[in-house]
Amino acid sequence: MKNNGKKELPRIHTGFAGEESGYYFDVSQVLFEKQSSFQKVKVIQNRDFGRVLLLDNEVMTTEWDHFFYPEMITHPALTSHPAPKSLGIIGGGDGGVATEACRHTDLAEVIMCEIDEEVVKASREFFPKLSAGLNDERVTCVFEDGTKWLVPYQQHFDVLLVDGTDPIGPGIVLFEEAFYQQAKASLKPGGIFVQQVESPMYSRRCSDMAFELLFEDIVKRARTIFDQVHVYVVTIPSYIGCYWAFMYAGGPDLPLQPRDERWQRIAGQTQYYSPEIQQAAFTLPPFVKRLLSE
Amino acid sequence: MKNNGKKELPRIHTGFAGEESGYYFDVSQVLFEKQSSFQKVKVIQNRDFGRVLLLDNEVMTTEWDHFFYPEMITHPALTSHPAPKSLGIIGGGDGGVATEACRHTDLAEVIMCEIDEEVVKASREFFPKLSAGLNDERVTCVFEDGTKWLVPYQQHFDVLLVDGTDPIGPGIVLFEEAFYQQAKASLKPGGIFVQQVESPMYSRRCSDMAFELLFEDIVKRARTIFDQVHVYVVTIPSYIGCYWAFMYAGGPDLPLQPRDERWQRIAGQTQYYSPEIQQAAFTLPPFVKRLLSE
Repeated sequence: MKNNGKKELPRIHTGFAGEESGYYFDVSQVLFEKQSSFQKVKVIQNRDFGRVLLLDNEVMTTEWDHFFYPEMITHPALTSHPAPKSLGIIGGGDGGVATEACRHTDLAEVIMCEIDEEVVKASREFFPKLSAGLNDERVTCVFEDGTKWLVPYQQHFDVLLVDGTDPIGPGIVLFEEAFYQQAKASLKPGGIFVQQVESPMYSRRCSDMAFELLFEDIVKRARTIFDQVHVYVVTIPSYIGCYWAFMYAGGPDLPLQPRDERWQRIAGQTQYYSPEIQQAAFTLPPFVKRLLSE
Repeated sequence: MKNNGKKELPRIHTGFAGEESGYYFDVSQVLFEKQSSFQKVKVIQNRDFGRVLLLDNEVMTTEWDHFFYPEMITHPALTSHPAPKSLGIIGGGDGGVATEACRHTDLAEVIMCEIDEEVVKASREFFPKLSAGLNDERVTCVFEDGTKWLVPYQQHFDVLLVDGTDPIGPGIVLFEEAFYQQAKASLKPGGIFVQQVESPMYSRRCSDMAFELLFEDIVKRARTIFDQVHVYVVTIPSYIGCYWAFMYAGGPDLPLQPRDERWQRIAGQTQYYSPEIQQAAFTLPPFVKRLLSE
């Protein structure tokens, strides 16, 4: 039945080296492929998912489900902070986080530090809508190692978002105590730090995934640094595990509730985020609570 | 790096015939494989997902994420109904729904109508924990076409759950108006009907999936029959799309709020469900609301 009468398409399999499961995509067209100094950047066309951005064979974003991740890493913090003026982004090379952030018209400054300029270039060309915010005059892109870039910033940001890769290889420094100390120091009083912290489903893998830092270990580590660390969960259909966690951290006066006057600035522009969805995302099921308390 | 020094494992690709994306699983072992009168029933062992039950090459359940679906089709209705005594299940051959239902100790009768006895046999053998409820003395299994089986039941069930396949092939009758009329007639006053109604992500596929009845069309159809039709969403990591919808329907006095005294009967026994998670699941994001209102 498959591709009846049609040419057989080349098929790619995503997943870390050594994984024995993952997504497959039949490739209608390879739109872009380049080995950067850091990773292999690739954009393919797939019939079901549309355009897919892959970094070292891991799915970063797809046309199909592009909005879940950038909306949900950005808007909970920017809607709960009473008056965010300065935003820092580490990673976020596809531009999705910058685009969502720029919907908050009173934000004065967005500084994004992405290690790999090739990701930004590929996203500008092949995901123009997702990366549109990179053209906003409030956005500055710096191409550097995020941990080095952050050092001089002291009590500078109202919100700092980390849209990085998984905690393997060079990306692991963004999950270390030294980085969390820097991140804490970079925030103004009342500032909010948000980071993607893997999937609680990985803690449930039937196999040992020895190269991974588990979700609950990341959160427990951050709790030794920040006064408050909360967790919320988001479905990201194209990421294996699908059920991904974000860490929401800050000082004793960390703002947690979405503010209606801030939501009104972006209402009608989101596909997944709403203040009610924010409240729902912070509601953790028993198995996630157990992972965090054990 | 892959399977470095190890024997290459056979790899299977799931997905409907003609799909150009899906999950792949490397098969450590084929535990069971049989062509029944209805479908190909297969159980494989995969390193990451554990045991995987496949029907006609579609994932039905896995050891890894088995609890999301049966807990979330079962407990919202059985926790919100003030005093459910009689439960009907159409489908549910893996036994997961019966197992969750039996946690409600005051439930007097569970009648499950599954079309394919081979699915039940395979689940009893290879998913003994998931299917444990099938041994409960309150559970009766009938092997028949659900739409025919339901006809004589008039105002009989407090809750009727449909844990069926996708709306393709023989399964499509469970999404037709005639069936919804039967389901409505089978409920006692105040009764609750719950059915898995596909993924809102399928409505967003970049391609045309012409053989599928879309989520919003199913809900709109049911709204012509039931007085009230609500929707809730659940992450099911091993189902492509990951973000799945359930329809929760009934008469003008449909109970919607989880009741604490009913939750206390099952508290501590669930991995995903809680009354707070139920409330969160009924919170729909803007893109799903739009699909339902257009």
